[in-house]
Amino acid sequence: MTKHIPSRLYLSEEELPKYWYNLRAFMKNKPAPMLHPGTLKPATAADLDAVFCKECIKQELDETTEFIPIPDGILEFYRAYRPAPLIRAYFLEKALDTPAEIYYKHEGTNTSGSHKLNSAAAQTFYAKQAGLTGLTTETGAGQWGSAMAMACAYYGLDLTVYMVKISAEQKPYRKALIETYGATLIPSPSNTTEAGKKILKKIPGTNGSLGCAISEAIEKAVTTPQCRYVLGSVLNHVLLHQSIIGVECKIAFDKYGVKPDIIIGCAGGGSNLGGLIAPFMGEKLQGKSDVKIIAVEPASCPSFTRGKFAYDFGDTAQTTPLIKMYTMGSGYIPPANHAGGLRYHGMNSTLSQLYHDKFIEARTAVQTEVFDAAIKFAKIEGILPAPESSHAIKVAIDEALECKRTGEKKTIFFGLTGTGYFDMSAYMQYNAKTMSDHIPTDEELENGFASLPKV
Amino acid sequence: MTKHIPSRLYLSEEELPKYWYNLRAFMKNKPAPMLHPGTLKPATAADLDAVFCKECIKQELDETTEFIPIPDGILEFYRAYRPAPLIRAYFLEKALDTPAEIYYKHEGTNTSGSHKLNSAAAQTFYAKQAGLTGLTTETGAGQWGSAMAMACAYYGLDLTVYMVKISAEQKPYRKALIETYGATLIPSPSNTTEAGKKILKKIPGTNGSLGCAISEAIEKAVTTPQCRYVLGSVLNHVLLHQSIIGVECKIAFDKYGVKPDIIIGCAGGGSNLGGLIAPFMGEKLQGKSDVKIIAVEPASCPSFTRGKFAYDFGDTAQTTPLIKMYTMGSGYIPPANHAGGLRYHGMNSTLSQLYHDKFIEARTAVQTEVFDAAIKFAKIEGILPAPESSHAIKVAIDEALECKRTGEKKTIFFGLTGTGYFDMSAYMQYNAKTMSDHIPTDEELENGFASLPKV
Repeated sequence: MTKHIPSRLYLSEEELPKYWYNLRAFMKNKPAPMLHPGTLKPATAADLDAVFCKECIKQELDETTEFIPIPDGILEFYRAYRPAPLIRAYFLEKALDTPAEIYYKHEGTNTSGSHKLNSAAAQTFYAKQAGLTGLTTETGAGQWGSAMAMACAYYGLDLTVYMVKISAEQKPYRKALIETYGATLIPSPSNTTEAGKKILKKIPGTNGSLGCAISEAIEKAVTTPQCRYVLGSVLNHVLLHQSIIGVECKIAFDKYGVKPDIIIGCAGGGSNLGGLIAPFMGEKLQGKSDVKIIAVEPASCPSFTRGKFAYDFGDTAQTTPLIKMYTMGSGYIPPANHAGGLRYHGMNSTLSQLYHDKFIEARTAVQTEVFDAAIKFAKIEGILPAPESSHAIKVAIDEALECKRTGEKKTIFFGLTGTGYFDMSAYMQYNAKTMSDHIPTDEELENGFASLPKV
Repeated sequence: MTKHIPSRLYLSEEELPKYWYNLRAFMKNKPAPMLHPGTLKPATAADLDAVFCKECIKQELDETTEFIPIPDGILEFYRAYRPAPLIRAYFLEKALDTPAEIYYKHEGTNTSGSHKLNSAAAQTFYAKQAGLTGLTTETGAGQWGSAMAMACAYYGLDLTVYMVKISAEQKPYRKALIETYGATLIPSPSNTTEAGKKILKKIPGTNGSLGCAISEAIEKAVTTPQCRYVLGSVLNHVLLHQSIIGVECKIAFDKYGVKPDIIIGCAGGGSNLGGLIAPFMGEKLQGKSDVKIIAVEPASCPSFTRGKFAYDFGDTAQTTPLIKMYTMGSGYIPPANHAGGLRYHGMNSTLSQLYHDKFIEARTAVQTEVFDAAIKFAKIEGILPAPESSHAIKVAIDEALECKRTGEKKTIFFGLTGTGYFDMSAYMQYNAKTMSDHIPTDEELENGFASLPKV
């Protein structure tokens, strides 16, 4: 017998998870190791030491510890905004007239407006603990930069954020938010780094890309004393921190006797998807569940569906270790009309392996369809979603309508990664009907693939 | 014995209040009646019929029913975003090193970003129930317009919003949000109404004012079939709807054995303050509590502290019934450097009477001090507050520091009316140090008072 499900499936403070879920520990086929770009041998902790904090490196390389305790100093921060609401979408179900039950995890109730704060808190805490005084990072759509600015304000570290130039222009208020929290913001590419100068020379007037901003932030970190670099997605320790999303949901679902049939997450570098699905995928890998997992990516940056499964650099300047992943090539830059985040050229290695082994399905969505779904959702559920999250909304609606067609009463669960309050320029484009779609041509893809290293 | 207090004092869905608290029923000195501006006799339901919905008029005139049931159709909407979190400010207490306990009610977790949705939902529901097809309203800072746009999208009514011109310019994304939810937005003053044309002729290039936008919205409503006007503050039925804020808090506090010593609310037209304090003031009026209640208003629009307690019009065009209130005069326009909301010339009649009878204290704050407090709060508690709410934060911090000085362990409770995500232009001004304070001169006040009607 199932209990009555309230609109919001809250956990009490005592029920908050005290551990992260290390999905790799449950995988038979582990993700391929990172390689040192010079020697092409698996990267060691020492190789990563100049760039990242020790504790994050340890987590990055840990493929066996199933449950990793969350330190008290991070739990304290989490309690400021977690648990995030898990919501039964009664309004949406009614509006779609579907027999499906729909749930979503709302990670946008904190000021940074997305799930990114989960890893920002962790990485900043570890940096503080290690005695560092500063951090650098990049931000695309701006959620990660905002999250890092909040975390650094809280833990008391300096922060320099390289923000993809077009995003800084399209989102002046996102920039202002980051600066209000005390961070230094530099539109990228900039002339503050060699990597930036090089790109500016090669492509004058470029809009920038996440890969390029990463190059600049890394360079700044390794040339500044007591400073390290933090990344908001792609890496396995980031996905580890994000597993708090999935674990909270799992606890709440178990409490109410709910078992999702389909889990849907948007996917850029993979931090939301990896965190959302972690404990559910763990069960699936152990044969305890046959939940269907769907990654949704923008048609304009389709690493799963049209990328190559290959070793590639994490950044445009090709300075990072090589990661085996689904990738468009580090030289790939999404079309200029692409409005939201999810513009990273590659995909986390764990998710890439799982996709390769057919534990994950992937779909693409074009952005006008995504905004159609976003506005429908906003009006029905009362939350204006981030463009990124709206990729998941689009497919959740598709699946719910498919249930209506077949009469099946499936349980659909998706990740609402954040709110769209700092994405109004994109909504304005949509409202003014000046938003367009761009599905990359094969030739555009080949241009990206041409940047792949020969390994 | 007090229980352990969690960071968030949630109510379950079953604990959600099912009634509004009609504060006037507990007052010995009732607020003075509204007067018909022509006859100067108390306004009757028939007098108000052309402008407002019947049910709202009934509530506006009801001074005796203590508890008014909330219809199911409104409760359903409330469940989409309520209960709003009641938060123990552990981080702030620690940062201030105060013996005081600090709590705040966070009304900004819904997309409109403030408490205004509580009355928007109610007024729109009643309009729908009455068979109307459209509504008009005004908005200053934009929260009310956003709330109405959300409510009208949900209940399926047309909405025209007159937005104070300077706000529409300073907050393009607020405008975009309102339009995204499907409302028609017109910067005020406009040439779509006689009232607007008149003001434009009198003061060409004016920034607009709330009083003027109200005149336009009323004119539009009374000249459109099946259309009525809704107001987001000032009136008693609006405060009634907002009592959901205070009632939720009272239930949660009682559950945990907490009794506030001081309650602090920002005050513009009074909707937040009136809602926040309703059940607590009710107890105070019955001699069951000696809680101190502090209204905080901007120094640039100080109706309580420097206004006159007199009959005045609610709008600039002087078309509304006369309301006995603390007022700057309907001709008063706050200085152009005033960045936030709280720019209405008068104050709700119930709160005015209570202030007159010394049940409420009032303080002013200048805006740079308010933003100092806002940014301190944002960094410490992790929520970027609305400029309006930050007036309450400023005084809550003052009171907590006073406790530190005296060693008293008081319980301080304030209303966080909303978030500042659509107020980044004001934060940018503050960050760029271009924000200034303006305390009106006596002459400026006299100019406002000159517009008061001779009653």
